[in-house]
Amino acid sequence: MYIVGIGPGHVSHMTPAAQQALQEAQAVFGYTTYIDLVRPLVEDKKIVSTGMRQEVDRVRRALQAARQGSVCALVCSGDPGIYALAGLVFEMCRENSIPIGDSKDSLKLEVIPGVPALGAGSALLGSPLMTDFACISLSDLLTPWEAIEKRIQAAAWGDFVIVFYNPRSKKRNWQLETARKLILEHRSPGTPVGLVTSATRQEESVSLCTLDSLDCNHVGMQTTVFIGNSRTFIYGSRMITPRGYHEKYQLEMREA
Amino acid sequence: MYIVGIGPGHVSHMTPAAQQALQEAQAVFGYTTYIDLVRPLVEDKKIVSTGMRQEVDRVRRALQAARQGSVCALVCSGDPGIYALAGLVFEMCRENSIPIGDSKDSLKLEVIPGVPALGAGSALLGSPLMTDFACISLSDLLTPWEAIEKRIQAAAWGDFVIVFYNPRSKKRNWQLETARKLILEHRSPGTPVGLVTSATRQEESVSLCTLDSLDCNHVGMQTTVFIGNSRTFIYGSRMITPRGYHEKYQLEMREA
Repeated sequence: MYIVGIGPGHVSHMTPAAQQALQEAQAVFGYTTYIDLVRPLVEDKKIVSTGMRQEVDRVRRALQAARQGSVCALVCSGDPGIYALAGLVFEMCRENSIPIGDSKDSLKLEVIPGVPALGAGSALLGSPLMTDFACISLSDLLTPWEAIEKRIQAAAWGDFVIVFYNPRSKKRNWQLETARKLILEHRSPGTPVGLVTSATRQEESVSLCTLDSLDCNHVGMQTTVFIGNSRTFIYGSRMITPRGYHEKYQLEMREA
Repeated sequence: MYIVGIGPGHVSHMTPAAQQALQEAQAVFGYTTYIDLVRPLVEDKKIVSTGMRQEVDRVRRALQAARQGSVCALVCSGDPGIYALAGLVFEMCRENSIPIGDSKDSLKLEVIPGVPALGAGSALLGSPLMTDFACISLSDLLTPWEAIEKRIQAAAWGDFVIVFYNPRSKKRNWQLETARKLILEHRSPGTPVGLVTSATRQEESVSLCTLDSLDCNHVGMQTTVFIGNSRTFIYGSRMITPRGYHEKYQLEMREA
């Protein structure tokens, strides 16, 4: 069974290993939107596409098929190990005492990494992640808000660049604004903020603002939010966190 | 000018967009080891490969060539925006007032994301990054150790999974052990630790230990270190951080 990261969306950012795994698979499982992104590659396969929030059912069905001997591919956007389905597959294997590994009676599981949303978004913005960063999901469906809030405070105090996944949905409409206020206790109002929605897909959009001017109402489910650290700057409409070369080296274009 | 992430090393994990950028380039710049990884793709190009620690010189030469009208590709391993060269390119453009953008007199810069070491390593280990994580470089060449230490403390306190880049070199031989002790103030000795060296390359190696038993002497420059959070577990020799499905859903294999 392959757990396949298809990357941010456009096929030009999907690795050959991911394409190969989809080709080898007899059955392909995934959220409808992600299946649509790879539709041309899987048209001749058995496809099990399900809606949002049905991930437990989706993984269960894929595991059942794989246990019956079918080569299965579970499709994830971005990287399967970053807020996607790899963890749920392993959790479910443990809960059901399904042996995993290379031996004859074990389930062979392979995770195929993909370009994560944080990398695709960073590339479009410039280079916001050039130094230490923290990645936090603002979804409190599976994690208590208290734990999320503690992490936001830790990341803000530690001057990490912060990447928010799942920043906002119709029902989860206050978390990003709360996070913004928490960060403002540690960081200047002018801190650059980058918003990337649906990187590399048709509906891609990229915008910059500041921590002070961030209007959370314009952020949706498909947006990844990048909050700069104390040294992040804007140059030529790019968001850049310096790594520190400037302090150590002559950066003039003539030979130093 | 393209700043190209070639991924962890093996060509099967390099995106079509990265391959396309290397094909379009007239001149290719990079650290010798990374150039060697893509040698078959760039054999007919002008190649400027330089040794370690010469990154300022490498970027300066690439920028000079690009300003003179050459289509250049600057090769980075993993993702160019994560401890690689994207930031230095932008820093140097600002220092030298080189206009960047799409207009006629500007330098056109495109960052091509790649599968980062944290993603390639995570896939080999299992799913250690399924919930919030912090990524920290232990190199104090460009960042003061005090700032790094503060971030380690913040990440340990916030119960982030922690990914260490640049954990150790011949000269930087005490930082990882210091980090380990700082984390032990917040986290149990039995916390799973995953070590991934040269993911997807010929010399790839993957191993697991605990925070208590981590022998820093066996960690080198090419190793990425994954420290679990308070809930990370080992199952079937995989390192897994649960996202929390177990608390919310029935994970039995029969229909719930």
